[in-house]
Amino acid sequence: MALSKNQIKLITSLALKKNRDVSSLFVAEGNKLVADLLPLFGCELIAATDEWIAENKDLILSVKPAAVVAASKEEIKKASAQNAPQSVIAVLRKREVRFSEDMLAGSLTLMLDTVQDPGNLGTIIRIADWFGIRNIICSKETADVYNPKVVQASMGAVGRVALHYCDLCAFVDGLKGKYPLFGTFLDGENIYGRSLPQEAIIVMGNEGNGISDALAERITDRLLIPNYPAGEETSESLNVAVATAITCAEFRRRVIAV
Amino acid sequence: MALSKNQIKLITSLALKKNRDVSSLFVAEGNKLVADLLPLFGCELIAATDEWIAENKDLILSVKPAAVVAASKEEIKKASAQNAPQSVIAVLRKREVRFSEDMLAGSLTLMLDTVQDPGNLGTIIRIADWFGIRNIICSKETADVYNPKVVQASMGAVGRVALHYCDLCAFVDGLKGKYPLFGTFLDGENIYGRSLPQEAIIVMGNEGNGISDALAERITDRLLIPNYPAGEETSESLNVAVATAITCAEFRRRVIAV
Repeated sequence: MALSKNQIKLITSLALKKNRDVSSLFVAEGNKLVADLLPLFGCELIAATDEWIAENKDLILSVKPAAVVAASKEEIKKASAQNAPQSVIAVLRKREVRFSEDMLAGSLTLMLDTVQDPGNLGTIIRIADWFGIRNIICSKETADVYNPKVVQASMGAVGRVALHYCDLCAFVDGLKGKYPLFGTFLDGENIYGRSLPQEAIIVMGNEGNGISDALAERITDRLLIPNYPAGEETSESLNVAVATAITCAEFRRRVIAV
Repeated sequence: MALSKNQIKLITSLALKKNRDVSSLFVAEGNKLVADLLPLFGCELIAATDEWIAENKDLILSVKPAAVVAASKEEIKKASAQNAPQSVIAVLRKREVRFSEDMLAGSLTLMLDTVQDPGNLGTIIRIADWFGIRNIICSKETADVYNPKVVQASMGAVGRVALHYCDLCAFVDGLKGKYPLFGTFLDGENIYGRSLPQEAIIVMGNEGNGISDALAERITDRLLIPNYPAGEETSESLNVAVATAITCAEFRRRVIAV
């Protein structure tokens, strides 16, 4: 059985958010990523080479995809959004994780104020996963977690970290000051010189504009990642994923037993 | 004077390394990046809108480009490699920084073992700049610093950090053990639990394969960036730019006065 035109059309249509929203489906590509995500999401369709299907019989049996189609390299190439398509494409079912406020209790949580680059968002999800951050609260203008580029850049971490999209200021106001909000600013306080709690929200801003003024007003703790040597001419800022990584690493360093 | 077909051809030709090598030229785009780089590199050509030229009269006078051409938005779009071209494209002269071993003395230096993604390399150059790392030693298979995507992602840091391409193993052997070589590995020693000197080489590996076996044998100090909580299922690794950021931040943290 070959991959039909309609199936190729379904896969390529999921590059667009409106189609993902209507169908509640998304796409993952590549041997490693698909193997990582299959146990974590319902599967509508696997399109793969005969070899991949033969090699992954047990996995397929255990996850029971709605359909498995043997596809030629040519068909996979037609359906793929990658420059170098591999042997498998999976159409998976989006997971709606109901967010509740007690997910914040005792935890570090990330909040993203309009991170727009899919590569940055995917990298940030991978960082969150590494540092045991299970929830990311995103402004509605943040890139979609099920954007294929986000899924690919997250390297499977989308299966272990939940993203919640909402109006950030309204969300923060609803918390009534229960959790401290940390953000990084060029005029913030040296992150290395102060205590960092393990129950907190870490806010990261947009690639070009940083944290919006309305949300910045609600930040309780302004941090600075100091450059080195102090006072020397340098880049004006760090990439948002890089700043997220250094900040999360420093929060966790405080409790990692050596 | 409009942008000629030949000038557009020159600009687009510089997307290829062989053309950059022959001409010793490279391209930078965008108002902020061009303004940052113009004082740092010789300039062969500026193609910009009338408005940009009017607004940047003083800058143009001070850097004395070989040619300044008023271009329509349409012409800039034809020459541009960006999805959303801005008002200016500059053709700049590559700078050959002669590398000498004493650049390593008293300094942190980065070594990249085949970082292939231009976005990753640009981000790493920006990280180096932030943390006062002035030299990066790259394997010959590492992405080219003057690749337009590297230049754009570095956000101007290419003007302050010098990249040197060579055979890494031969280079390291030539140092005869004078400098410690740090690398991150999943079975390394917790980075937070040991001393980190300010004169050292930090080695980062390829996106998929990490540090090559031959170079790994020459690493003197194997580090681990611990995940949190320990032992929990998580992403198998961090993105190479993210690992670079956390490692460099931790080295510098030790000497940043609080």
